[in-house]
Amino acid sequence: MSNEGFIVTPWEVRGEVDYERLIREFGTQPLDEELLRRVEKHTGTLHLLFRRKVFFSHRDFDWILDKYEKGEEFALYTGRGPSGHTHIGHLVPWILTQHLQEKFGAELYFQMTDDEKYLHDPSLSLKTSIHFTYENALDVIACGFEKGKTFIFSDIHYAKTLYGIAVQVAKHITTSTIKAVFGFTDSTNIGMIFFPAIQAAPCFLPSILKGKNVPVLIPAAIDQDNYWRGVAREVAPKLGFYKPAQLHSKFLPGLGRGGKMSASEPETAIYTVDPPEVVTKKVMNAYTGGRATVEEQRKLGGQPEICPVYHYYHMLFEPDDKAVGEIHISCRSGNLLCGECKARLAERVRRFLADHQRRREKAKDHLQDYFLKD
Amino acid sequence: MSNEGFIVTPWEVRGEVDYERLIREFGTQPLDEELLRRVEKHTGTLHLLFRRKVFFSHRDFDWILDKYEKGEEFALYTGRGPSGHTHIGHLVPWILTQHLQEKFGAELYFQMTDDEKYLHDPSLSLKTSIHFTYENALDVIACGFEKGKTFIFSDIHYAKTLYGIAVQVAKHITTSTIKAVFGFTDSTNIGMIFFPAIQAAPCFLPSILKGKNVPVLIPAAIDQDNYWRGVAREVAPKLGFYKPAQLHSKFLPGLGRGGKMSASEPETAIYTVDPPEVVTKKVMNAYTGGRATVEEQRKLGGQPEICPVYHYYHMLFEPDDKAVGEIHISCRSGNLLCGECKARLAERVRRFLADHQRRREKAKDHLQDYFLKD
Repeated sequence: MSNEGFIVTPWEVRGEVDYERLIREFGTQPLDEELLRRVEKHTGTLHLLFRRKVFFSHRDFDWILDKYEKGEEFALYTGRGPSGHTHIGHLVPWILTQHLQEKFGAELYFQMTDDEKYLHDPSLSLKTSIHFTYENALDVIACGFEKGKTFIFSDIHYAKTLYGIAVQVAKHITTSTIKAVFGFTDSTNIGMIFFPAIQAAPCFLPSILKGKNVPVLIPAAIDQDNYWRGVAREVAPKLGFYKPAQLHSKFLPGLGRGGKMSASEPETAIYTVDPPEVVTKKVMNAYTGGRATVEEQRKLGGQPEICPVYHYYHMLFEPDDKAVGEIHISCRSGNLLCGECKARLAERVRRFLADHQRRREKAKDHLQDYFLKD
Repeated sequence: MSNEGFIVTPWEVRGEVDYERLIREFGTQPLDEELLRRVEKHTGTLHLLFRRKVFFSHRDFDWILDKYEKGEEFALYTGRGPSGHTHIGHLVPWILTQHLQEKFGAELYFQMTDDEKYLHDPSLSLKTSIHFTYENALDVIACGFEKGKTFIFSDIHYAKTLYGIAVQVAKHITTSTIKAVFGFTDSTNIGMIFFPAIQAAPCFLPSILKGKNVPVLIPAAIDQDNYWRGVAREVAPKLGFYKPAQLHSKFLPGLGRGGKMSASEPETAIYTVDPPEVVTKKVMNAYTGGRATVEEQRKLGGQPEICPVYHYYHMLFEPDDKAVGEIHISCRSGNLLCGECKARLAERVRRFLADHQRRREKAKDHLQDYFLKD
């Protein structure tokens, strides 16, 4: 969707996103307290990303829980467009997905859309896109997914299976539907026109591999919603499969002013491969909700609601609810100044990335164990 | 193309086809005497399908011969849409292709477009289409292609390699180009929109497998021409490959009145799996260029030019040029009546099919040896 002040599509997120409005306009359901209490029963303490409403919306998540409570296993499906290195914004849905895998014992099918990234970006070679499939997979594995229950695949390298599913989806989707859902035109290349069928295919992959209908839950940022709404959920009943359920997250903001963290503004994105000194520099240069001068800030207080630094604590880097509340209060009161706040965050991020990079390095030894091949 | 009295597209051939006009409208070159003499130098006696102008048109076949004469090997590429059993009309290009393989020592890449047939025909299941991939492959092998130089592949089962090539083609082809070339609309499913990229992919497959640019020659009925003209030949230079060359054949007519042999009129098509009594019945029921009564025919003579029975002798079943000329003369003179002429043809076809079916049966033992898999 695209209107007054913000744009949310699979390729672009701009402006201050009004998430309540996305729920209304996309026709999704809010992740309400009742549903969260139900999750808590199964997971113990509610995950930070649920508690803080980073995941805030869903489709049929209640149905997934119904199925689970009746003893039926569900599968998780999420993915990544491998056009470059992973940044910490990408990790948000993966962290929750890992948590769900652990707590619900679910298999994960993880799609690397190297075809889409190549088709979409005129300057990207197929070789580069495939290269980042494997680079990014190291970050996926570093999130702690379970070997034997986690199946990563490249659209290009796993096409033997995917293409056969995708043509079944494609047979039921007209060009005009794809144009309406994604805003494509006759100038769009035919690979992009077909790609939604490839992205829908993994919704049915667990069912095909198991030979029985398997419920699928897709945790992903809400900009991907129209793939599932307009294609996979439309086609599922025609092919005899369950409609895939979704959990929608907000976007981790970039370190600049407004918008999600994006590879198109690399100085405002923290990459998982960034060395500590680069992290420090990026965080210390971040846009904040601070005032023009120290005096003003002491007098008026900071504005955490528009501050990416505050959002980083809130969404990812301060697990203690009380502590994050204190950051909010001391910022608002003018006690906490931006320099100190950023220095503390930089320290948190460096520690987080040091751990991640250690696991990422280890993942190189068993990368292929996580990949689906035929 | 579609105009006054006849239609020729990849999905439909109707009416009396004016082949001279197709050459002009498609912008191809006639296979002239000079070129045929050049072929003869390499093949010895000119093949019946060249001599009788069943193959009548080309693109860049002279360039293929240039390359060959300079010592550069070329590859052959042709294919089949496996929507049902093979009929003898399908065999025409395969017979010439086998001859070219034998005389020029060329590798053959043979595409089974099970994806296209499934996507195009609402009533066809993917399973059935894939089933006929392997059924039809038996007929290909029965034509005498050389093991180790002949690589058959199913679009679905070989997608691991094909899809990666097809996305490279697709990136350079807009939806409006595909609409213009194939007459597709926004109601066309997105699989059909993408499929031309899959059909173009094998033009570049030999080059990719060999790691060097390989000239490719495509012998096929002329209704397939717009695939190569509108897609593969457009994209080739952008991807750094040679443009594929083509040899175009006429259509073997059906046994009814007008039009090519077509599975949509099964009583007028002779299938390679038809038993002898069915062949006899179909041939004896054929439409002919004969007159309403024997008396009239004795007086006026028959009309071989509009007679499928005569065309079968001419295109396939009477290799002796003198003998085929005699059939023509004795038909025109009213000496040869249709009953006798059909009975003789039925005998020829039965013998042809008995041989073919024997080789087809033997092919079952080494079917997989001819298939490309990854």
